[in-house]
Amino acid sequence: MFISFEGIDGSGKSTQARRLAETLRQSGRQVVLTREPGGSPGAEEIRRLLVEGGNERWSPETELLLFTAARRDHVERVIEPAMARGDWVITDRFADSSRVYQGAARASLRDLVEALHDLTIRLEPDLTFVIDLDPAISLGRGRARGGIEDRFEGMGLTFQQRLRDGFLALASEAPERIRVIDGSGSEDEVAARVLAALP
Amino acid sequence: MFISFEGIDGSGKSTQARRLAETLRQSGRQVVLTREPGGSPGAEEIRRLLVEGGNERWSPETELLLFTAARRDHVERVIEPAMARGDWVITDRFADSSRVYQGAARASLRDLVEALHDLTIRLEPDLTFVIDLDPAISLGRGRARGGIEDRFEGMGLTFQQRLRDGFLALASEAPERIRVIDGSGSEDEVAARVLAALP
Repeated sequence: MFISFEGIDGSGKSTQARRLAETLRQSGRQVVLTREPGGSPGAEEIRRLLVEGGNERWSPETELLLFTAARRDHVERVIEPAMARGDWVITDRFADSSRVYQGAARASLRDLVEALHDLTIRLEPDLTFVIDLDPAISLGRGRARGGIEDRFEGMGLTFQQRLRDGFLALASEAPERIRVIDGSGSEDEVAARVLAALP
Repeated sequence: MFISFEGIDGSGKSTQARRLAETLRQSGRQVVLTREPGGSPGAEEIRRLLVEGGNERWSPETELLLFTAARRDHVERVIEPAMARGDWVITDRFADSSRVYQGAARASLRDLVEALHDLTIRLEPDLTFVIDLDPAISLGRGRARGGIEDRFEGMGLTFQQRLRDGFLALASEAPERIRVIDGSGSEDEVAARVLAALP
């Protein structure tokens, strides 16, 4: 089983990915918890190029190629070997983040995102949780945990709103794979919603 | 006018690219001399990921995505602005290196190389010089200037022979664009051959 968590920055998806991994481990399953961009040693090096620097450091097209390179390494070196062993894989972000960030919110590159995905990645999660939260709340959380963390959070509230709209649109395109989870309330409340939505 | 120099490691292409740039500048032309991987600040950072580390650091597919990301940045930030100003651009390596390294010599990814090129680069040089040299000579030159320089030179003589064959095959596919230059003899002799082949 390959599960991804998606959502805007500060939505709580990383926390929920970790909590689901812990719950599954407690029930005796082997779980690999990973994240994007990054997740493998090579992809983590590419991640540094992507999350550091100013907004204009890379064009949307170059950025998308770097995310795709990092994802290819992550899939080859971590996700596919784990799935071959029969482990569960839980990733904090995967291809839907490219569909929303480079495909809709930052630039209209959705066709290019899909073409690169079809050429070099192909793999899709069995199940995706979108942790949905009002950006006014999520940006506040980001600041509370130590300020704006990376290039994308620095792009502001309007950008985060476009991201949220993008994730919700994606969920309506692929309802068989993507479950939207209300991200408001306590960690425990959201974790209970995730477990209830697990098939 | 956009001109690329191609060839195996140690063939003398970098020296010949520099010499042609100098000759054109002496005749009053504005010339941007650049190189791949790299050529722009962002692409130079990606270059470090590509030329450092062991042979197995990246799969051929990930490597190709990184080269394509670096090329996109190089084209956007250096080559197209220079061409828009009316400058001549001379680059030490361009897309043909991907066609030969990832498309033929290291892996059989030629279809993927062309698909990524068509999706994200599209630009082709007006003229390409392949500086052709026996790998037994070129590898000796590499050692003379301070040993094996990067991951690709470390892949050995058989690999360099496959690269040479790949460049010659490419030249026969695109004779209207690619001129094969005999790289044996002195720098002056090769430079004279390049000038004689300039349209």
